[in-house]
Amino acid sequence: MPKEPFTVVGTAFHTPERGQFEILENHLFGVDRQGRISDLLPPDHPDFEARKKAAAAAGQLVELADGQFLMPGLVDLHIHAPQWPQMGKALDVPLEVWLQKYTFPLEAKFADVEFAREVYGELVDGLLANGTTTALYFATVHGPATLALAEICREKGQRALVGKVVMDDPEQCPDYYRDPDAESAVQETRLFIEAVRAMDGGERPLVMPVITPRFIPSCTDAALEGLGALAREYGCHVQTHCSESDWEKDYVEARFGESDAASLDRFGLLTRNTILAHSNFIGEEDMDLIQERGAGVAHCPLSNLFFANAVFPLRKALDRHMHVGLGTDISGGYSPSLFDGCRHAISASKALHGGVHAGLAPAERGAPGEAITHREAFWLATAGGAEALDIPTGSFRPGHEFDALLIETKAAHSNIYLHRGDSLEDLFEKIVLNATRANIGMVWVSGRKVVG
Amino acid sequence: MPKEPFTVVGTAFHTPERGQFEILENHLFGVDRQGRISDLLPPDHPDFEARKKAAAAAGQLVELADGQFLMPGLVDLHIHAPQWPQMGKALDVPLEVWLQKYTFPLEAKFADVEFAREVYGELVDGLLANGTTTALYFATVHGPATLALAEICREKGQRALVGKVVMDDPEQCPDYYRDPDAESAVQETRLFIEAVRAMDGGERPLVMPVITPRFIPSCTDAALEGLGALAREYGCHVQTHCSESDWEKDYVEARFGESDAASLDRFGLLTRNTILAHSNFIGEEDMDLIQERGAGVAHCPLSNLFFANAVFPLRKALDRHMHVGLGTDISGGYSPSLFDGCRHAISASKALHGGVHAGLAPAERGAPGEAITHREAFWLATAGGAEALDIPTGSFRPGHEFDALLIETKAAHSNIYLHRGDSLEDLFEKIVLNATRANIGMVWVSGRKVVG
Repeated sequence: MPKEPFTVVGTAFHTPERGQFEILENHLFGVDRQGRISDLLPPDHPDFEARKKAAAAAGQLVELADGQFLMPGLVDLHIHAPQWPQMGKALDVPLEVWLQKYTFPLEAKFADVEFAREVYGELVDGLLANGTTTALYFATVHGPATLALAEICREKGQRALVGKVVMDDPEQCPDYYRDPDAESAVQETRLFIEAVRAMDGGERPLVMPVITPRFIPSCTDAALEGLGALAREYGCHVQTHCSESDWEKDYVEARFGESDAASLDRFGLLTRNTILAHSNFIGEEDMDLIQERGAGVAHCPLSNLFFANAVFPLRKALDRHMHVGLGTDISGGYSPSLFDGCRHAISASKALHGGVHAGLAPAERGAPGEAITHREAFWLATAGGAEALDIPTGSFRPGHEFDALLIETKAAHSNIYLHRGDSLEDLFEKIVLNATRANIGMVWVSGRKVVG
Repeated sequence: MPKEPFTVVGTAFHTPERGQFEILENHLFGVDRQGRISDLLPPDHPDFEARKKAAAAAGQLVELADGQFLMPGLVDLHIHAPQWPQMGKALDVPLEVWLQKYTFPLEAKFADVEFAREVYGELVDGLLANGTTTALYFATVHGPATLALAEICREKGQRALVGKVVMDDPEQCPDYYRDPDAESAVQETRLFIEAVRAMDGGERPLVMPVITPRFIPSCTDAALEGLGALAREYGCHVQTHCSESDWEKDYVEARFGESDAASLDRFGLLTRNTILAHSNFIGEEDMDLIQERGAGVAHCPLSNLFFANAVFPLRKALDRHMHVGLGTDISGGYSPSLFDGCRHAISASKALHGGVHAGLAPAERGAPGEAITHREAFWLATAGGAEALDIPTGSFRPGHEFDALLIETKAAHSNIYLHRGDSLEDLFEKIVLNATRANIGMVWVSGRKVVG
């Protein structure tokens, strides 16, 4: 939909490449009618003043005030949309209780599309308010409710990749909540893909369909084969859980005699458009394979600690230049904020590499490698996630979608305190480490203002 | 100072004893002129309605609205007041750089009392807004600036225990920032104690002085002896860092041939009024000794991960019924919020007990014991901290100080979402796991409204 072009003038922070942190001090950001960054002028550019004046005269200038900064929108690579109502709940019970008593009964309720609309509306509003401009969603097995999620994202203006979950194995899934059989699971997925593409089929769709086997243990071979065929046919995104826990890793090896990643590859489900959630227990060969296919990993540091008893080997993945980003994993993670996600990623990385158990000798305490920095964490939450999804966002570049946050360091309820002597780089660290939803003054997705 | 009595009617959550979670549904809380809880009536009490009506008629009723809840104020057992300006900064550098390049130069600036007043005013406002009704502060070596902190806490109404830091060993402390010698360090501490007691010397002082050797490595024997004598003479609180890191543990053992805790005890610095920060590397004998003396530990989960390469053995301490609470450890920790502190304590506990390193066998991955729950974390942040300090706050009981938070679950920028089917206990979990400063609508300390 064509919009009015506009111009933002102010200072932006971004991490366009891993290991690269850039301050665009006092720059001018032109946003075109399509919501893309048309150009990006430094303050000493000969056209800067004229462009700024023209935008002001046309009523199309957003000039950042003192204490306001621009940052790229955040990309959530793994979130269970139907688990929104239990975010922050039932995290003190064992996994089996969590699944059987809370999670599956809740997801089953999304057979009711009205209920789904209500929850999903609140979810998308909540995530946008937290600065999540792109989300890769697991929905439920239900086609209509999942299509409702896609519609709501489009209406509210969130960039979204949405998957109807497939789980058809009667031995692993509850009777009251599963696909009736492999054939219908695959057919419902096909219908869902076509419906989403019919709804938003342009060259630059805001909402995209995702082939979503819950994980190998919940799917029959026939379903996995059928979904692999769909992935080839439609070339769309794929998501699933991979090697999250000891149990999952062992289950897949016992069933197929090979790793989770290798099995997914055999079914045609490991592609450049695949995102594997967790992947805590992948080995070197799995990493080689994932990287060869160009697939990515959604690192979910909080739920790693709560449900996996292990943390994804992120440093190794970064050193190998794998595609990787961050997921909140709601509601296995309790926080909807990817700023929290950045902090959790740093903490989990510190725990993994520095060690935690004082009873061990220092050299035996942690895994090899350095912990990640706040710059790397922010890259994961923005450009890293976008790169994994192969979408043109996550940093400020001409041609990229204008998915951005206006950060208000001086907002009411802000815990970001600037002091004499703080450099802009210090300030960026203070934002990454202490920003909350209260600091997010405006949010744009493809140039559309969706918050503020 | 006598105040007007008032009455609060609504639902409160608290954890009066470790392992005990209580919902005071629709109760009436009477607060007397001294700011103490005079009584606490359930809704079926014969006087409930009359008391509520009388309070309303006198204009002294605070009736909680839908979505509002009462919780005890939060107790921060370890925070470096002068490090407030660098909260969230310089956390990507090694400890030695952090200390020498950032922390000591910053603390040295508090020779300037005007600078101190400015920073400390912002600090106390910021902590109160985050719900910290009691703080145990390390200040700096400077008497006048430290007294200014005590005055500011009293003016703004925060319950505070404030210590002038002692660090006199020229071999371990920078020339530009240390006590000139042991004698003056002890004498300055004595003057500080007397000045604070002169300022707030009643039976229920809001602000109390704390004997504060930075840690054994920064103090000479003469300073430690002198401070031990002051502790006996004045019977006031004591705080120091204990066995935080491998380095600190090894240093004390090399110097004294015994552990940090045993050395502190020998100097007369381990008492019922002592709080030991960190204590990650204490062994069973240390725990016995600390417990025998009735001293407490300030667990600082975030800085454990950032600076200690080990996590305090909290489960063991809880099982032994040691005194223990939470510290933010600003600025070794980046967050001023003890709700964050609760979450960090849970995550660190999950990391310690569940393990993090997928390369190890499951049985070798973590330390023995169960991770802590959100209920235990909240107890640590409230009643546990208060018990460690031996002050009558941290839960709602007649005779306790009315130190309380009004939690607004429906505040703007709230990430707490209530849903059909959530019990009040679920709601409590959602608050502990997702509350931010934006959810803190009012704060009282000893019945004085200090926020809202």
